[in-house]
Formats: sequence, structure tokens, C-alpha cells
Amino acid sequence: VGCPPVTPSQLKIPTPVVDPATVPAQLVDLAKLSDSELSAGVTRLIFTDSDMAGRAYVRSLMERAGLVVREDAMGNIFGRWVGSQPDLPAVGSGSHIDAIPNSGAYDGTLGVLGPIEAIRALRRAGFKPKRSIEVLMFTSEEPTRFGISCVGSRAMAGKLDPKHLDSLADILVPDGGTFRQAALKAGYANTTADTEDMVKQCSLGEYGTYYDSFLELHIEQGPDLEDEELSIGIVTAIAAPAAIRCAFTGDGGHAGGQVMSRRNDALLAAATLTIAVEKLALDTGSNDTVATVGVLRVGPGAINSVPRTAEMEIDVRDVVGARRDEVVSKIISYGEQIAESRNVRWSHDIVNSDPPETCAPKVVSAVEAAAKRLNLGHKRMVSRAYHDSLFMAEVAPTGMLFIPCHEGYSHRPDEFASAEDIKNGIEALALALASLSLA
Amino acid sequence: VGCPPVTPSQLKIPTPVVDPATVPAQLVDLAKLSDSELSAGVTRLIFTDSDMAGRAYVRSLMERAGLVVREDAMGNIFGRWVGSQPDLPAVGSGSHIDAIPNSGAYDGTLGVLGPIEAIRALRRAGFKPKRSIEVLMFTSEEPTRFGISCVGSRAMAGKLDPKHLDSLADILVPDGGTFRQAALKAGYANTTADTEDMVKQCSLGEYGTYYDSFLELHIEQGPDLEDEELSIGIVTAIAAPAAIRCAFTGDGGHAGGQVMSRRNDALLAAATLTIAVEKLALDTGSNDTVATVGVLRVGPGAINSVPRTAEMEIDVRDVVGARRDEVVSKIISYGEQIAESRNVRWSHDIVNSDPPETCAPKVVSAVEAAAKRLNLGHKRMVSRAYHDSLFMAEVAPTGMLFIPCHEGYSHRPDEFASAEDIKNGIEALALALASLSLA
Ligand SMILES: [Mn+2]
Ligand SMILES: [Mn+2]
Ligand SMILES: [Mn+2]
Ligand SMILES: [Mn+2]
Repeated sequence: VGCPPVTPSQLKIPTPVVDPATVPAQLVDLAKLSDSELSAGVTRLIFTDSDMAGRAYVRSLMERAGLVVREDAMGNIFGRWVGSQPDLPAVGSGSHIDAIPNSGAYDGTLGVLGPIEAIRALRRAGFKPKRSIEVLMFTSEEPTRFGISCVGSRAMAGKLDPKHLDSLADILVPDGGTFRQAALKAGYANTTADTEDMVKQCSLGEYGTYYDSFLELHIEQGPDLEDEELSIGIVTAIAAPAAIRCAFTGDGGHAGGQVMSRRNDALLAAATLTIAVEKLALDTGSNDTVATVGVLRVGPGAINSVPRTAEMEIDVRDVVGARRDEVVSKIISYGEQIAESRNVRWSHDIVNSDPPETCAPKVVSAVEAAAKRLNLGHKRMVSRAYHDSLFMAEVAPTGMLFIPCHEGYSHRPDEFASAEDIKNGIEALALALASLSLA
Repeated sequence: VGCPPVTPSQLKIPTPVVDPATVPAQLVDLAKLSDSELSAGVTRLIFTDSDMAGRAYVRSLMERAGLVVREDAMGNIFGRWVGSQPDLPAVGSGSHIDAIPNSGAYDGTLGVLGPIEAIRALRRAGFKPKRSIEVLMFTSEEPTRFGISCVGSRAMAGKLDPKHLDSLADILVPDGGTFRQAALKAGYANTTADTEDMVKQCSLGEYGTYYDSFLELHIEQGPDLEDEELSIGIVTAIAAPAAIRCAFTGDGGHAGGQVMSRRNDALLAAATLTIAVEKLALDTGSNDTVATVGVLRVGPGAINSVPRTAEMEIDVRDVVGARRDEVVSKIISYGEQIAESRNVRWSHDIVNSDPPETCAPKVVSAVEAAAKRLNLGHKRMVSRAYHDSLFMAEVAPTGMLFIPCHEGYSHRPDEFASAEDIKNGIEALALALASLSLA
């Protein structure tokens, strides 16, 4: 895969200049719209009051930047800077603002606020886009509430099965409804007949027809750029994620009355599988394989009761899809073995299992050219975390631009990216979007 | 320890006759006062609306039986059948109606409704007590809400440390208050200055001054009586319970971005300890040692986040106190080792660690004599489950009377005792209480 040459029109793009204080201050404002104290990190689950407040904040920034704002049936928000050839497929850039419990202020949010500021910087520099440049805020990148990630971008890519979406339980509201019911409560989906119609309305159609290219700005969520003192990571591939929900069910009993030999303790089965999940990830011998039991819920959950139920949610990722699939299938067959040997019942569901994606050469080149022009240290790299870009890659040629984050921390309160790195990232993003808009 | 002879006055006690339908129907009524659907078992945590409704039901049954009802500062309920010598220390009988999540309809409740019905049967038979006979409903036998069991009976025995009680977190209401604040909300403790005063007001004073004897009726919560086709278990000793709360804390991180080698996953530490707890109990080689991880809570609890926190509650019991203590100390030292090897922080608290109790010979004899007189198959046995009787044994000579339960099931929705076994148990209880009241 070669790099297309830099065209004369790209060389004429005026240099965008970003004020280093603006976006960090906006990120703090947004972090305050949270269901947890700031010291305990950001918690902003999809369609909660704090998410609704965050959405209003994003729309206000888009409007202030002179963008044409629209929302679709699932609450994806679009802010468009209309180009001189408005009928051409646009250049998209965006990410998410939903945040898992007690996480940080930068994951996703930077990729929403960053392109808004990039557009403002391009305007200030006097740039005029040919293709429209559009900022996106995706609905529910994080899987916290309904168990499935990237709900908005899956729908855009036509990769969301409405029946499966309807089958997923609301973890936030016990005995709550479906995703669609939560969307209706939040004021979306009102013009849709049912879940199938809702999902269909969000599709962006044939590859390349809505967007000509898509580029997501994100913190690295890993330590490489900081360790190597580089400013820009140019993502060439995105790791393949899979999510498993499973449950062990025994017969419970009294923690005093029931002797050890008569028990079938669901938690002991789950604990055994939890340890096996770590071992199966380590056994591939590759740093790129990661597997995590992030959720383990015990029922009835009383100190003097033998656990009857243990529900688990397991995340497995790899940049090599086949190796990831092997870990997933080993986890499932080991779960079955444990259930048999501990005489508990077992059920499992592969909630999603997505292929890895290779980034589009023209987007990779645009980012690389921007980093070079700005004299920013950069390298090509893989994203072990996944993003809406994984699904946008099915909508249009797609790439990602990473900036360093402190110690690689993410999904925790001390997630941090410096004002300087944010400024550099947004300036490189602005240049890359501008050049893609001229293509 | 010999048995005192049956006295002539005991031989004159008329035979009480219990209708087999009455108490089972009342148990169903009480089971409906629950925070879970009946099919999912009974959930009645202390001082919740369902507990308050259960208390009103118990008071109404006490009043209908002609008992003099009072409640103390912690919500323990007393219903007294005044004897011919009302100044003598009374005979007590009681248990609890609070129920852990999704448990059964018989644990505790039988020991509250049973003695009320026993008194009605004795009245119908024309018996007149010398010592008053008093029915008790204890507050918070189950440790679900504040982590400590037998709150009411510990206070009666002067074995409840008010400072420790104040230090225990309310599990039901996050960032909720103390036990005393929950009691105040429920309408108790209003006449007390502080927790120390509240606890002190509930003390029953010097050994033997308030009660002359105490006898608790309970389902066995184990399979022995059913297996051996016996009607009555005469408890000679109660196993020693201990409760440990502990927590592992790591640094969390992104389940994609953070490679396996850089993690310190709190759940992996907790899963390792969970499996060790089972092994340490099995390693004693005695059926009487049981150890259970009944609670394991993971934070932040999101599929794509490496667990930062894992909080555990561990229950350990044995009829041999020293052997139980050894298991507890091995669990704690193993927890420390795991924390070190997995590079996570670790904290622990032994919430309670109570000695085993031997039942009082005079109560054991009274139950044995009653079973013999009614021609009910019976045997002496140990209670591996513990009960308020463990603490009442510090208030007065104490014993317990078990009836069979289906498969030994307890703390689960399918907990069951037959109408026939309930009738037999209450008749034996009535005879034993009557004879103790004449002593
Ligand atoms: Mn995230
Ligand atoms: Mn993200
Ligand atoms: Mn119980
Ligand atoms: Mn009980």
C-alpha cells in the first residue's frame, strides 16, 4: 500500500493554530456533567440525565462554531461545516461522550470537542472546505448500559441487528426496557415505527456515499507514544473486540447449614473461569491479546448464603482476529467444563465478535502528511482499544489519530492528556481534515 | 451433665394440640410481605417497608393471642403471656423474620409464629403458666444490611459494641447512614441519646435475671433429620460463626488499551482468594467446617474496564472454635499473600468472631422429655447454622429445637417444612415451654 503524493491544493492549506487552553477547559466543563464526584472520575451512561446534559453541551459548541446540527433517530449528533461542493460525500470526524462508571475525562470526548475546535481553527486561518466537514457524536460507544458497544456506529454501518438489540437487558434500570425504550424516553426515535425502522433510519447507506473519508481523534489508551516521546500515533489497524455474557447457576443454600460436599456454588465456578480467562490471554504469548472479566455479579449476594448465580461479562481483543476467536472459544469450552465439574448450570451468549479493521491508506497518508508538516514526532501503530471507527470503516475509508496519554491510563479517574498534546493533535487533525476535504 | 428428673408438676401439663393448617397459612401470609416475587423467594431486609409490614403482622398475631406486646429501642418485639408469678424471670422463645435476598419462608419465621401458636394451644388445653412465657422477634438476625448478624440478641446479651455498630456501612442504601439512623427512620430509638444509649437500653441485664430459660424453634437448615426420618432435633451446641469483610484495590484501566502484563486486576486477586476459601474449609477434613464467599462486588463493574476494586464478605463456621479461628487466620494471611503477589492493595476487617455455645442441660432435657411424651422420633445434634440463641445463651440457659426441612435447603426459595413437621415441632415446643414455666 503506497502513499498518494501530496497535491498542490493541500500545500495551499493555511496552517491552523489551536489555543492550548480552549479544549482542556471544555473537557473539564464536560467532565462535570457526570453521575460521580469529579474526584471519583466521570460516569456518564447513555441516555441518563448527565448524558443528556453532555449532549446539550456538545450541540451548543457545534452551534457556536457555526455548524449545521442534526440528530438522528438513535441520538447520534451531526454538526456540519458546509463545503463549497455540498453535494459531494463529506469528510467525517467524531467520537463519543458516554463514559463508563468512574472513568476519565478524555476518552471519546477529545474526539468530539477536538474536531469542533479544528474547524474553528481552520475558519480562523481562512480555509474554505470543498467537501463538507462533519463532526459526529456517536450514541453509546461504551457498552455499559445494554452490553453492546458502538451502538450508533453499528447502525450507521448497517451492522446492528434490531432483534439482538431488543434482546439486550438494560443493566442500569432493573427490569427496565430495551435500548429503543430508553431512546424514546430521551426524546429520540419518535418518528420510528419499531426497532428495525429506528436502526434502518440511521444507516448511512452504501460505502463511500455519505462520507468520502472518516478520521477519529482519540487518546492512545496505551503507553507507547508517551514512552517513545512522540506526539502523534497514526493508526493502521484496530483490534478485534468480542464480548461474552455468561452465567453459572447453582442451588444456593445456607452458608452454615449446608456442608461443603453438598454445595454447587456458582461463584466458585465463576472464580475458576475468571482465573482461566487471564491464563488463556497470557497463553497466546502476544502482548496484543487481552482478556478481561470486567463484570461479575453474585446472587443472592448475602454473606450467609451460598451463591446461586454468578453472571459474568468477558471482553476479549486481539489485532489478529483468528487468535482472538480461539481465545473466545477456549473460554466457552472451559466454562462448560467448569459447569460440569462443579455441577452448576451454565449459559452463555457471544454479544459481539467483530473483525479487526485495517485503516484506509488515504486517511493514513493525510494524517502522516499533517504530522510531518507540523514537525510532530509520529509513528504508525495499532489500536488495541476499539472505537466507532471500527464500524465507520464499513461506511467510508477510515483512520484514527492518537495522542499520548499519561502512563497509558484510561477508563480510570486519573486518565490525562496534556494541553500541549491536545493542541498538537487538533492541529494535525485540522490539517488532515482540510486536505481530505479537498480530495 | 445429667438430666434433671421429670417433676410431678410437669406430668400434669395438659397435652397441647396444634392445628396443622394454621401456622403454614400464616407463614405464606408473611412470605407475601417481601421485596421479591414469591416465586423468586422472600426478601425482607431489616427496616425496609416489607420488614415493617412483617413486624405489624407479628404484633397483630401476638395481640390476637392475648399477649402483652412491647418493643425496645432497637425494634426487638416482645409478646408476654403473663404467668401466675409475674415477678419471676420468664421463659423466652423467639427468632427472626428478616430474610436475606431471595430466600425462603421458614427460616426464623417459624420460630416467631411457632411460639405464638404454642401459647394458643396451651391456653386451649387449659394450661396456666407459673413463670411468664414470652415470645420474641429479634431485630436483624441476618447480617445482610449492616454486615453483622444477630444485632438484637447481641444487644440483649451486652455483646454489641456501639462504636463497631456505628462503623458498619449500610449496604442497602449507598452512602446511607448507620444502623441507628435506619432504626430512627423506622420509628425506633427515639428515646435514646446515642448509639451507646440505644444499645444499653436493650440489655437484658445479669445472666438469668430477665429470662430463666430460652428456647428457639427453627428448621434444621441441614438434611440430617429428614434423612433419618426424625421429627425433632435437640440442639446441644451451636457452631461458632465468623465474618470477614475484605477488599482488594488495584489501578483499573482500559480492557483494550492496557496489556496483561501492566495490570493489577482486583477481581483476579478476589477470585484466587475465593477458591482458596473453599480449599481451606475442605482441608480441615471435618464436615463441620464450612466457609463461604457469599458477597463479591466488582468496581467499576464494566465489561471494558479492568476491575479496580473487589469487595468480599466471607463467612466461616465450625463447632470447634479453635479450628474455625485457624481457618480465619489462614484466609487473612492468604489474602495478604495474594495482594502482594498481584500488586494490589488489601484491607480486611473481622466483623465478628463468636465462640461456639453449649446448650443448657435443663432446656435440652425439657425438649427431650416433650419429644418422648409426644412419641416423636428425635435425636441430639449440633447446629452448624447459628442463631440469636448463640447470644441468648449469654442471657439465660438456652436451647434450640429443630424440625426437618426438605433436603436441608435453606436461604433459597424452595426452603420447605411440612405442615405435619411444623405441628409436631410446635406441640413439642409448647410442652417444653410449659414445663420450663413451672420450674
Ligand atoms: Mn472507552
Ligand atoms: Mn473511546
Ligand atoms: Mn437465616
Ligand atoms: Mn434463622
